[in-house]
Amino acid sequence: MFEQIFENVRQKSPLVHNITNYVTVNDCANMLLACGGSPIMADDPEDAVEITSICGGLNINIGTLNQRSIPTMFAAGKRANQLGHPVVLDPVGAGASKLRTDTALGLLEQVKFAVIRGNISEIKTLAQGSGTTKGVDADVADQVTEDNLDEAVLFARELARRLGTVIAITGAIDIVTDGERAFCIRNGHSMMASITGTGCQLSALTAAFVTANPDHPLEAAAAAVCAMGLCGEIAHRRLTDLDGNASYRNYIIDAMYRLTPAKLEEGANYEER
Amino acid sequence: MFEQIFENVRQKSPLVHNITNYVTVNDCANMLLACGGSPIMADDPEDAVEITSICGGLNINIGTLNQRSIPTMFAAGKRANQLGHPVVLDPVGAGASKLRTDTALGLLEQVKFAVIRGNISEIKTLAQGSGTTKGVDADVADQVTEDNLDEAVLFARELARRLGTVIAITGAIDIVTDGERAFCIRNGHSMMASITGTGCQLSALTAAFVTANPDHPLEAAAAAVCAMGLCGEIAHRRLTDLDGNASYRNYIIDAMYRLTPAKLEEGANYEER
Amino acid sequence: MFEQIFENVRQKSPLVHNITNYVTVNDCANMLLACGGSPIMADDPEDAVEITSICGGLNINIGTLNQRSIPTMFAAGKRANQLGHPVVLDPVGAGASKLRTDTALGLLEQVKFAVIRGNISEIKTLAQGSGTTKGVDADVADQVTEDNLDEAVLFARELARRLGTVIAITGAIDIVTDGERAFCIRNGHSMMASITGTGCQLSALTAAFVTANPDHPLEAAAAAVCAMGLCGEIAHRRLTDLDGNASYRNYIIDAMYRLTPAKLEEGANYEER
Repeated sequence: MFEQIFENVRQKSPLVHNITNYVTVNDCANMLLACGGSPIMADDPEDAVEITSICGGLNINIGTLNQRSIPTMFAAGKRANQLGHPVVLDPVGAGASKLRTDTALGLLEQVKFAVIRGNISEIKTLAQGSGTTKGVDADVADQVTEDNLDEAVLFARELARRLGTVIAITGAIDIVTDGERAFCIRNGHSMMASITGTGCQLSALTAAFVTANPDHPLEAAAAAVCAMGLCGEIAHRRLTDLDGNASYRNYIIDAMYRLTPAKLEEGANYEER
Repeated sequence: MFEQIFENVRQKSPLVHNITNYVTVNDCANMLLACGGSPIMADDPEDAVEITSICGGLNINIGTLNQRSIPTMFAAGKRANQLGHPVVLDPVGAGASKLRTDTALGLLEQVKFAVIRGNISEIKTLAQGSGTTKGVDADVADQVTEDNLDEAVLFARELARRLGTVIAITGAIDIVTDGERAFCIRNGHSMMASITGTGCQLSALTAAFVTANPDHPLEAAAAAVCAMGLCGEIAHRRLTDLDGNASYRNYIIDAMYRLTPAKLEEGANYEER
Repeated sequence: MFEQIFENVRQKSPLVHNITNYVTVNDCANMLLACGGSPIMADDPEDAVEITSICGGLNINIGTLNQRSIPTMFAAGKRANQLGHPVVLDPVGAGASKLRTDTALGLLEQVKFAVIRGNISEIKTLAQGSGTTKGVDADVADQVTEDNLDEAVLFARELARRLGTVIAITGAIDIVTDGERAFCIRNGHSMMASITGTGCQLSALTAAFVTANPDHPLEAAAAAVCAMGLCGEIAHRRLTDLDGNASYRNYIIDAMYRLTPAKLEEGANYEER
């Protein structure tokens, strides 16, 4: 299944509009190109609605949100909904500030998302309407482990059902669910947390996968999560003892560029619960 | 000729003011340093006019343009004109939205450009006053090939004459013309399209080359296009079967850092039509 | 001493809020992760004060400052002061424009800084209230050499005493002083000037070091300067004859990721004057 999903990305080359933060935007663009998609960025209200219209999908990432980009997120999100384009939300830092929490919650009310991807603390904030995110990383107390996995799956499934979207909670173990089926994914490497923006890149990637597979948002999101983690594994094997997080960043994008649909199918490490 | 032009860049170390997008801005800065120039970025209206004044050249790139940066582009462009500094325009995504098209056309009316560098779809938009650019990449229907090259050269030459500027249309085959002479350049590698911002980097590079060679904007722009393409070739030969677009991005900038004027002269692959 | 300081960074993993420019922001984030810290970026006035509150330290960098980010710098700086968080100032381009100079001087009046890190031209601008910075690089006429080192140390010491802060002037020879003790540091490599943002990265790094060692801002800043320079040396030894400034950029961050407290102690090259 994942083989065909990735094949569709390579063949359709989905054009994805990203309203995203300026910290990791370049890596998001190169990741989109690496997977076979095509990126465009626009965050001025006057520009973004039109840009969304010529794209196939939209990726909204609230890191470094501001008074100019926030209304753009709402306007572009609504326009994408009108056009039937899949929209992905990355609620970066939801729970870390009122502005981020309120923006994420407001977007949930006014925009229909195909997939919401975040760490467990961010997703808990969306579920509860408030949170205690430690910056842009998951709170240690929140982390999904083998011990609390069933509980976390239950939480994700209920939230997905309530919001009518696919929820992707990523961390050491990833959970992707549409409220019915739930994928638990064990690809990836802990060193990915030492690179800024692997989460942002994954959200952009997810947007490309869902845009190229509009009828299968659950499987597309799960395939994107597996692909990102698998590239983290492949890239980690390539590290020499001089390499650190900067080279690792490049190697992960390189690995996505080289990844084939068959290798994704073979390397995807998941179970359904 | 190109040897001397590049030698001037290395010796004069032109300081280039860039008003550019936040997607590829870091790569533009490192590319400018790689060629021997020096970058500075400023896009607040209050800051930018003064920054332009202390620089030798100005590079205006309309990707991720916004309500704050647009008036800055006009103000800095006019100031650079008053000072006799060369100004380069990169009309990223002209044709993809009304705001981008209108901004590019407005800039053409109010600012005198030494060089305009874009893909064929963006340049056609400038010529026609409207367009159908697919995002930030050239429309397939527009692409310059060996079959339509003469026609494309004619188009570029007429536009250059009409606008009184050097036009650089880049793609598989590049065309650089001032309305009289026209260079057709065959340096480069198709994989460069898999990296975000090679066009933006080339525009920044062009600004450095033209700033260091103010009396020869045509040859300076052609030399910059050859240099960028040649670095794409050199970097491509360096790729291992683990490397992808992220490493390729680094290797191209590395190649520019290592490129000598003599090697540019030797590797430049062009004809005049 | 530096061994323990760096050990504290690795163990405490300080969360640093950065209000910084969009040119080098990604490298700053990866450098913070490389040293063991954790980065968060926020520059909207409504967002930033709250984000500062959940962090341990604040890094203010005025490159690409704008009408939105300037008030944020003041508000977040004051909030960090109230909370007793160390604040680092990087006065990028002070002296190059009135807006940059005035913003830096205004910040000095309203915010108490633990460390101010800049090149000699920027720091002279702060001392004199005006300057002639050539873009974002130090003016050649200003540069600190072995010949004028004593004079430069005297200048730095007086300024540190007057402003009640640690002053870090970085260049070929670095000076770090709190007005009493002064470290002269000879780590680093001249090729670091060919990479955009090594100064910005160092300021972010300094913020992490000072945040993890709040009672020793002088030694923490000096350790950060040594660490950055040492990584520049280690990374330079790794360069092949194909590598240029782009790979060098990655290798420096890689070297910080791999650097141990013991190796910093061993490789730090400084004297006190």
